[in-house]
Amino acid sequence: MPVAADTRAPTVAMLDAAAARLAGHIRCTPLLSSPALDAVARRRVLVKAECLQHTGSFKLRGAWAAVSALSPAARARGVIAWSSGNHAQGVAAAARAHGMRAVIVMPADAPRIKTAATRALGAELIPYDRAHDDREAIAAGIIKRDGLTLIRPYDDPQVIAGQGSVGLELAAQLASEGIDQAEVLVPCGGGGLAAGVALALDARAPGLRVRPVEPEGHDDTARALAGQPHHPNPGPSALCDAILTPRPGLLTLPVLQRLAGPGLAVADHDTLRAMAAAAAHLKLVIEPGGAVALAAALFQPATLRPGPVVIIASGGNVDRALFARALDTED
Amino acid sequence: MPVAADTRAPTVAMLDAAAARLAGHIRCTPLLSSPALDAVARRRVLVKAECLQHTGSFKLRGAWAAVSALSPAARARGVIAWSSGNHAQGVAAAARAHGMRAVIVMPADAPRIKTAATRALGAELIPYDRAHDDREAIAAGIIKRDGLTLIRPYDDPQVIAGQGSVGLELAAQLASEGIDQAEVLVPCGGGGLAAGVALALDARAPGLRVRPVEPEGHDDTARALAGQPHHPNPGPSALCDAILTPRPGLLTLPVLQRLAGPGLAVADHDTLRAMAAAAAHLKLVIEPGGAVALAAALFQPATLRPGPVVIIASGGNVDRALFARALDTED
Repeated sequence: MPVAADTRAPTVAMLDAAAARLAGHIRCTPLLSSPALDAVARRRVLVKAECLQHTGSFKLRGAWAAVSALSPAARARGVIAWSSGNHAQGVAAAARAHGMRAVIVMPADAPRIKTAATRALGAELIPYDRAHDDREAIAAGIIKRDGLTLIRPYDDPQVIAGQGSVGLELAAQLASEGIDQAEVLVPCGGGGLAAGVALALDARAPGLRVRPVEPEGHDDTARALAGQPHHPNPGPSALCDAILTPRPGLLTLPVLQRLAGPGLAVADHDTLRAMAAAAAHLKLVIEPGGAVALAAALFQPATLRPGPVVIIASGGNVDRALFARALDTED
Repeated sequence: MPVAADTRAPTVAMLDAAAARLAGHIRCTPLLSSPALDAVARRRVLVKAECLQHTGSFKLRGAWAAVSALSPAARARGVIAWSSGNHAQGVAAAARAHGMRAVIVMPADAPRIKTAATRALGAELIPYDRAHDDREAIAAGIIKRDGLTLIRPYDDPQVIAGQGSVGLELAAQLASEGIDQAEVLVPCGGGGLAAGVALALDARAPGLRVRPVEPEGHDDTARALAGQPHHPNPGPSALCDAILTPRPGLLTLPVLQRLAGPGLAVADHDTLRAMAAAAAHLKLVIEPGGAVALAAALFQPATLRPGPVVIIASGGNVDRALFARALDTED
């Protein structure tokens, strides 16, 4: 039983309205750089540090945009989401700020830092088995019983509009750096961030082009943008838990086909090296799924247009042990 | 043979002039927070993330202020500094930006990340043995030969004025948060940052009071502020390399006696725990010497005035292995 969805295409007007609702509640994250990273990449590298966002990832933006768009009646009933962690924290934090109930259907093997943080934000957690359970069916049952509104992680126009606020900030920040032509590398799971940023840049900084970045073997968006027929990704990779999606979103893919690409895919080893480089030179903790764009910028220079490159470091919610493993990765 | 020094007391007018010279060259670093840290500290904790400053620490501010105050003739000859690392990087970066020669006298056992970064910034490195050599004598010989200007790490009014720009930013940022009464915990070695921030807050936000924080056993400033006679610190601690100084500065101590204190001292174990907490909840890499203030805020609540606490995370230049050790510290 599929849950009813809002299937409107996201628009720039929705982005602007979402940005107005977000104002004062989310951080305008800094645009950072380091001569050492520039030297590795052999070009200027500008890093939008969304790992410094409240809840540790950009996901709060989309969740806040969606929650704040609900009717008073829907707010009174509350929201539900499924997520491996960052969207969960975003929905939990946004719901709590709006005085709403939040239920999160979360994989039982999600990073502990994400489950603990989501619980600390007051959400009710429903664990499920990633391999055997149907998270949508679990959510549908709870929705039928309690009348909660489902906040989808990316296939929701308000969520995409909220993530687009990253692009609105980037357009202004890059203008003040004098950069009006560049590729913007964006970590991509379902494509909500990439699509939202692409919409924002198309409207406000059309010389900046989004290129989605995925883990090797999970580059369903890159393949779709290249016109290849869909086939399932191979078995799960444990590393980039935040951006492992089986296929591009129904609302995000048309935006990306119109405004973004080509896609890039990076090896897990390069993602770990990028995490170590970000710690050493930017003093940032970036999670694997948030580091794929930096990995592409640092270690795939030949695949990029000449000139400065902008990357989004989309989240920082990584368990200590995995982060220590990244720090220990050989160059 | 002591090197001639500028012994003028730093003033707010010097701070404002330094801030004007720094504008556009240093980052206004963000003021970050996390509900998880607030829960540990049982109060609101606001973190000024100077680890995100260019060169990875606040030291660029003072170095830039000093270098930019030199006469054209002095600029043509260049500058020299002694430093375990962060001041070295600051002086090297500021000198390079001004097209000047920079010579750095640096302990042979300084963290590799700091020596490598200083060399990458174009400085000439002169290693010395921390236990047996006299760094001031080494510098004096080079100064006599080449006519370089010594940029002291803290006992220089221009350096203190430059570090004070952190306080000017804090005054504005805390005003916009609605905070006009709070303690501001500042990592303290020679006291340049603490004195500069104290001068700035006294002038612009007099309800905010600096409290210097040092490693246990190296709390010479706390003891001086408590009116105790000077006695040497015990043997070197390897952890907080950035803030191990034998005694308070001649220019900084009078400022701190007038405007700051009482001092705080934290155990190395708590500093490591604070580094782990900053990585988990703020997504920041903070070096040990930069984490002592956060450690005091998190783990010494009884020593602080009630209400919100502001801390400066002064630097992030830590070797991978030591950072991994901090991540592995038990709570």
